[in-house]
Amino acid sequence: MQNKPAIILVTPQMGENIGAAARAMANFGLTDLRLINPRDGWPNELAIRNGSGAFDHVKTQIFENFEGAIADLQTVYATTARPRDLNKRVYNPAQAIEKSAGKTGIVFGAERTGLLNEHIAQCNAVITFETNPDFSSLNLGQAVLLVASQMQNNSNQEQHLDFAQQSEIKNLSDRLIQELETAQFFREDNLRPKIEENIRNLLSRAHLSESETKMLHGIITALTKQKAD
Amino acid sequence: MQNKPAIILVTPQMGENIGAAARAMANFGLTDLRLINPRDGWPNELAIRNGSGAFDHVKTQIFENFEGAIADLQTVYATTARPRDLNKRVYNPAQAIEKSAGKTGIVFGAERTGLLNEHIAQCNAVITFETNPDFSSLNLGQAVLLVASQMQNNSNQEQHLDFAQQSEIKNLSDRLIQELETAQFFREDNLRPKIEENIRNLLSRAHLSESETKMLHGIITALTKQKAD
Repeated sequence: MQNKPAIILVTPQMGENIGAAARAMANFGLTDLRLINPRDGWPNELAIRNGSGAFDHVKTQIFENFEGAIADLQTVYATTARPRDLNKRVYNPAQAIEKSAGKTGIVFGAERTGLLNEHIAQCNAVITFETNPDFSSLNLGQAVLLVASQMQNNSNQEQHLDFAQQSEIKNLSDRLIQELETAQFFREDNLRPKIEENIRNLLSRAHLSESETKMLHGIITALTKQKAD
Repeated sequence: MQNKPAIILVTPQMGENIGAAARAMANFGLTDLRLINPRDGWPNELAIRNGSGAFDHVKTQIFENFEGAIADLQTVYATTARPRDLNKRVYNPAQAIEKSAGKTGIVFGAERTGLLNEHIAQCNAVITFETNPDFSSLNLGQAVLLVASQMQNNSNQEQHLDFAQQSEIKNLSDRLIQELETAQFFREDNLRPKIEENIRNLLSRAHLSESETKMLHGIITALTKQKAD
């Protein structure tokens, strides 16, 4: 997804939850919050307070109806606690973010009642949270958090470590095997190829850094040197 | 991952947060909560109350130290707010759950202080939450929720290897360090803690199987035995 989704709250009741939603958004860099007829009006002191500064990062717009709030969007998802029989595709949050295209909005219903079927009908697909049927207690702020946090899965973040070159790994493996040869570690000749493979496998899989490679050379030297004393 | 991960809270301070963590777990079917020295003891009334019934679904165990809490686990992840320079792989929650294998635990530090480097060194990899650098306000319950909710995205990624338990890794590290002590490897006393941490870090990160652990014991024996000859 190129665009960060808008978060749309339909007739939210409690200011605290609007603040929690804004916080969840700001944590993951979402900035477009749309409120449809918030019960206590806007601005809302409880929302601002519970937002802990999130509204400095999140732009809030107020709409009078559902159609207005989603008018400019290209993909709209409805969130529901349980899948309903609405003949819509049902995604989990990760799938939804992956499949969304263009300017996207994600719609959350009021705290107790959730979304009306007439709203869901206007959405492209449904997002559900596959919670435990025996214990399901996600509140509005947490539901927004679970969607917003999917933004972090969009980026590639393999951290770059100072990995040793393969030739250095080979040198290390070769040296260790040579030292083991000297120490008569390979007592049974027919086991040697398998053990050697295991050692090379392990040292490759460990994904050693250059300094770790040096440390291991030092360790081999230390463990073997006393025989020369 | 076949097994649902254990959630491990290191010296959690506030009962409310323990309750929120349990709620997050129960929502996504996690049942193994491990508390290391909770500040206010256990059971904790605030935790139970804020759990809203979650403790009927979550089994809680108390541990006196980190080693005990992770002893039976095969994959252990440390969660940190920001990547630190610890030479560990860094995953987001989705990647971590996907790559975990065997009995898994996910470790969360205390509310203000987070995890100590000595704890992180004993983990296989690090999970970070890629929050907005300009607004980052995840609390402990939310962090647990972001990990626990990955269970819903986790249909089937089984990759079963015969991983060693953490207690076996600790034995191996302890033995190697002891042998290096004997071999006078730690020439400068002030460098010893760092080298020791690097060794533990490397052996944890390598994610050794049981047979590899045995092989490494055999290698240490072979390399050191000749001094006794």
